[in-house]
Amino acid sequence: MQTDNTAILLIRCADREGLISAITAQLSRLGANILYLDQHVDREHAHFYMRVEWSLNDFSISLDDFRVIFLHEVANKYNLSWEIHERAKRERMAIFVSRYTHCYFDLLSRWKAGELPVDIPLVISNHEDLREETEGFGITFMHVPVSKKSRIEAAEEHLRLLSEHEIDFVVLARYMQIVHPRVIDNYTDAIINIHHSFLPSFPGAKPYHQAYERGVKIIGATAHYVTEELDAGPIIDQDVERVDHKFCVADFVRIGQDVERKVLSRAVQNHIDKKVISHNNRTVVFS
Amino acid sequence: MQTDNTAILLIRCADREGLISAITAQLSRLGANILYLDQHVDREHAHFYMRVEWSLNDFSISLDDFRVIFLHEVANKYNLSWEIHERAKRERMAIFVSRYTHCYFDLLSRWKAGELPVDIPLVISNHEDLREETEGFGITFMHVPVSKKSRIEAAEEHLRLLSEHEIDFVVLARYMQIVHPRVIDNYTDAIINIHHSFLPSFPGAKPYHQAYERGVKIIGATAHYVTEELDAGPIIDQDVERVDHKFCVADFVRIGQDVERKVLSRAVQNHIDKKVISHNNRTVVFS
Amino acid sequence: MQTDNTAILLIRCADREGLISAITAQLSRLGANILYLDQHVDREHAHFYMRVEWSLNDFSISLDDFRVIFLHEVANKYNLSWEIHERAKRERMAIFVSRYTHCYFDLLSRWKAGELPVDIPLVISNHEDLREETEGFGITFMHVPVSKKSRIEAAEEHLRLLSEHEIDFVVLARYMQIVHPRVIDNYTDAIINIHHSFLPSFPGAKPYHQAYERGVKIIGATAHYVTEELDAGPIIDQDVERVDHKFCVADFVRIGQDVERKVLSRAVQNHIDKKVISHNNRTVVFS
Amino acid sequence: MQTDNTAILLIRCADREGLISAITAQLSRLGANILYLDQHVDREHAHFYMRVEWSLNDFSISLDDFRVIFLHEVANKYNLSWEIHERAKRERMAIFVSRYTHCYFDLLSRWKAGELPVDIPLVISNHEDLREETEGFGITFMHVPVSKKSRIEAAEEHLRLLSEHEIDFVVLARYMQIVHPRVIDNYTDAIINIHHSFLPSFPGAKPYHQAYERGVKIIGATAHYVTEELDAGPIIDQDVERVDHKFCVADFVRIGQDVERKVLSRAVQNHIDKKVISHNNRTVVFS
Repeated sequence: MQTDNTAILLIRCADREGLISAITAQLSRLGANILYLDQHVDREHAHFYMRVEWSLNDFSISLDDFRVIFLHEVANKYNLSWEIHERAKRERMAIFVSRYTHCYFDLLSRWKAGELPVDIPLVISNHEDLREETEGFGITFMHVPVSKKSRIEAAEEHLRLLSEHEIDFVVLARYMQIVHPRVIDNYTDAIINIHHSFLPSFPGAKPYHQAYERGVKIIGATAHYVTEELDAGPIIDQDVERVDHKFCVADFVRIGQDVERKVLSRAVQNHIDKKVISHNNRTVVFS
Repeated sequence: MQTDNTAILLIRCADREGLISAITAQLSRLGANILYLDQHVDREHAHFYMRVEWSLNDFSISLDDFRVIFLHEVANKYNLSWEIHERAKRERMAIFVSRYTHCYFDLLSRWKAGELPVDIPLVISNHEDLREETEGFGITFMHVPVSKKSRIEAAEEHLRLLSEHEIDFVVLARYMQIVHPRVIDNYTDAIINIHHSFLPSFPGAKPYHQAYERGVKIIGATAHYVTEELDAGPIIDQDVERVDHKFCVADFVRIGQDVERKVLSRAVQNHIDKKVISHNNRTVVFS
Repeated sequence: MQTDNTAILLIRCADREGLISAITAQLSRLGANILYLDQHVDREHAHFYMRVEWSLNDFSISLDDFRVIFLHEVANKYNLSWEIHERAKRERMAIFVSRYTHCYFDLLSRWKAGELPVDIPLVISNHEDLREETEGFGITFMHVPVSKKSRIEAAEEHLRLLSEHEIDFVVLARYMQIVHPRVIDNYTDAIINIHHSFLPSFPGAKPYHQAYERGVKIIGATAHYVTEELDAGPIIDQDVERVDHKFCVADFVRIGQDVERKVLSRAVQNHIDKKVISHNNRTVVFS
Repeated sequence: MQTDNTAILLIRCADREGLISAITAQLSRLGANILYLDQHVDREHAHFYMRVEWSLNDFSISLDDFRVIFLHEVANKYNLSWEIHERAKRERMAIFVSRYTHCYFDLLSRWKAGELPVDIPLVISNHEDLREETEGFGITFMHVPVSKKSRIEAAEEHLRLLSEHEIDFVVLARYMQIVHPRVIDNYTDAIINIHHSFLPSFPGAKPYHQAYERGVKIIGATAHYVTEELDAGPIIDQDVERVDHKFCVADFVRIGQDVERKVLSRAVQNHIDKKVISHNNRTVVFS
């Protein structure tokens, strides 16, 4: 259950005693009613993760003032990596798409149904095909063709468009191009890709064909943040479905598309809810 | 990952602002290093649940002193239902069993493998069959026959044995008798039963036969705390397995036994870890 | 993998020796290349089920002639219940819908994507709401209001429309009305309903609320053929999803909708592929 | 449901018309009551697979005579790869084990419970540890140490023991040694291994550590026939379990062990029931 007038504080730091108390005490002094508090200690690496969400209804100061106070009184003292989000300020999400529509339309229909509380001002595609449907949703559709020669120019155009539309994060809805490192550098942990296999099995091209050839009995899909190494970024979510000898490659594709939809939408939902913290190529995903 | 020298505080109360901060601040002042903190607000009923586990290594006072301080400084003020457990003090678990062995041996083998950190001083059965195997595990086996006439005498004997062996909680490993209300009254949220159906489907006798007759495509098992109403107590865990028309009742039984083992052992594990809070016939199970 | 030029023979009868041989021998003599053969013997009830699909490419006679020959040479001899379908002759499916759109749009989008090889000439609703979207798909939308008083008139109108559009089977895509027995009588094993619970748990109204109140840890959905007894018809498919204490009723609804989509589309797919045989309120669903 | 007095015919060949009819007609002429018939056509490779099981109660000739007749009248004509098994003649299974007990004891306890209709005359281990438990089950325990130097000698001893005990197939219950190619050559599709990852992810050593490092959200196990290439043989079965950031490597191991038990016992069951046909490094597993 969500109310819109809340703030979310995400924290990551070396594990130390008294962290939870220091943070919750400060919030409490300022009138915060804590709605959710999740924390995780990775004991092997002595690392601490925390997500706390509180109502701003009775909060005694502005979030901007809180940022200053929190920085001086807590964050510096404990050497925290931290960020604060305000639910009422919707993030701005762009979608990159090629010609596959199953994940793309699934995201748009969930968005229309109010399940994804974001703004979607921009869709970028390397094909013209989906212009009409996209504009029907009231979203700007930009065709940026990509060829081997034009990869850098395309990347510059991507960055310009993302900046112009003040995009916070990007979803690759089965975008069939490799995103240029320049774009990735500017959107760390802010580009979500769906790969149509249970990674690290079958990275790269044609994973359903690979899975069929290997004779696996379960296929899957993986949502991950994009890093420079292909299909090797931090995994946000995965899911699977059982197959057997009766299924041909086309069946793998058909069944896999349902898994892709499920995994990608769940990952995007968790990203929007600020439940994902990425560190050292692994993720903490609070539930 | 668990260390043994920790304490666990479970809290349940009407939701109020400042609860988390008040509790963590007090723990922090006393030198507690919080290892896990889980909380849940049931907004519909404005109810608050919390589980906090901390290391006793640097804790500045004894747990007995803490109980007094916590009572006066926090629990009374916020009108908390609360309990404190010490991991190093293993709980004492009894098992009731009849003739089915699959759940019973599964629990014993997990216990032997160190997965279930409890003491098991006592097994009670309405049959003699499993005496030898039980005593082979170094556990006292008590045969308490139950007939329609002897139900009250059996209940008295159950209570006497449970008291004599200082039992904290009871697991019914497919015990084929209804536990007497007098016993239930003395062990609220402390008797765990495994029912071999996906409750509330097919309560009562022969659920696999009922499931087969109804033609369901999925069967399941349910672990729950025992209350006076048969198979209607708060559910701790459930799981399922897919079946189809090729399966006869005997197949349902065979497949169901694996599900029963899985669900019961998981419920017992969570009970031992003090991750289950029961309220109004529903449970919060922290993960 | 499917080719369109095939025939499907479904058989149901008391189990006898030599059935498979008699049937396959006759098909073989007529030049049939058998693509799929599935059979099931329900030993408890000594009942035999079979589905055989063969290519018509080299079949030496017409299907109409085959029907006559098969009747005289095999079906009468073994006292078979049987039916023959031709894949190239697409069945005609109607959808009944109220205001919930998730299952409805999911079916239409799968149909548009070519996943459901049927014609959909008719949609009937007790509300006007979805007229525009339906007609956008090129489907006739008929508004048939239903009130307590008008139940019989509505049923007559339903039957008239189904007959006029030569409908073979009906899908209730979360149609919020009870279908009148007169309609059910005319479409035995030809009306598929999706119930938003794991039947037989929570039949009737508001199953997600019931599930939440009971505190279950898994929710589900059930596709079944409609019979006169509410939510008690033969089950075609079921599926489930795990929930926990953090989920409120609205979450149950949201998660459940994905399960409903999955289960209903799978049941419709199997019905279209003639893989479902219903008998004595249970189904055989060949895979 | 199984009766013991049945025969099973497994067939593999290039796909041709009339195969099912030719085979079932011959069986029918000889009085066979077919209990199960499963077939699969791999259209991509135009390959045909079939499994037929029939009662021998009214079968008019001996299985030895049937072998001759079938060879001459059907198998040669259609160029079949084929084998015939008799359920009443239990196969002889050996287990190779090192020190991990979870899969080993699970197999033995299922065997004791009558779930695995085989004889288990022999267990081979590279350690002495499990002698007592094994002999307690009435099984011959042979300690065959394996060092880098002694690999060939060990293989010779393995072959000698397997031959002496007339072993039909071998199960590696987390046997921590690579089986020598000489042994593999003699037991094609007759050595079942359980690998503790969702292959092809994480082949080789320490897969749970690899999975943890990669940050996957689902772990699994794979049962496969052993071939010379490590962890690359035809997959018989796989299953998975969800994990999250709270799980350390030890948790992966603990949860994974339950998956390993489930997958290995299911694969062994299907192998015993002669439901697995291996071809070109993939399997058909009839259900």
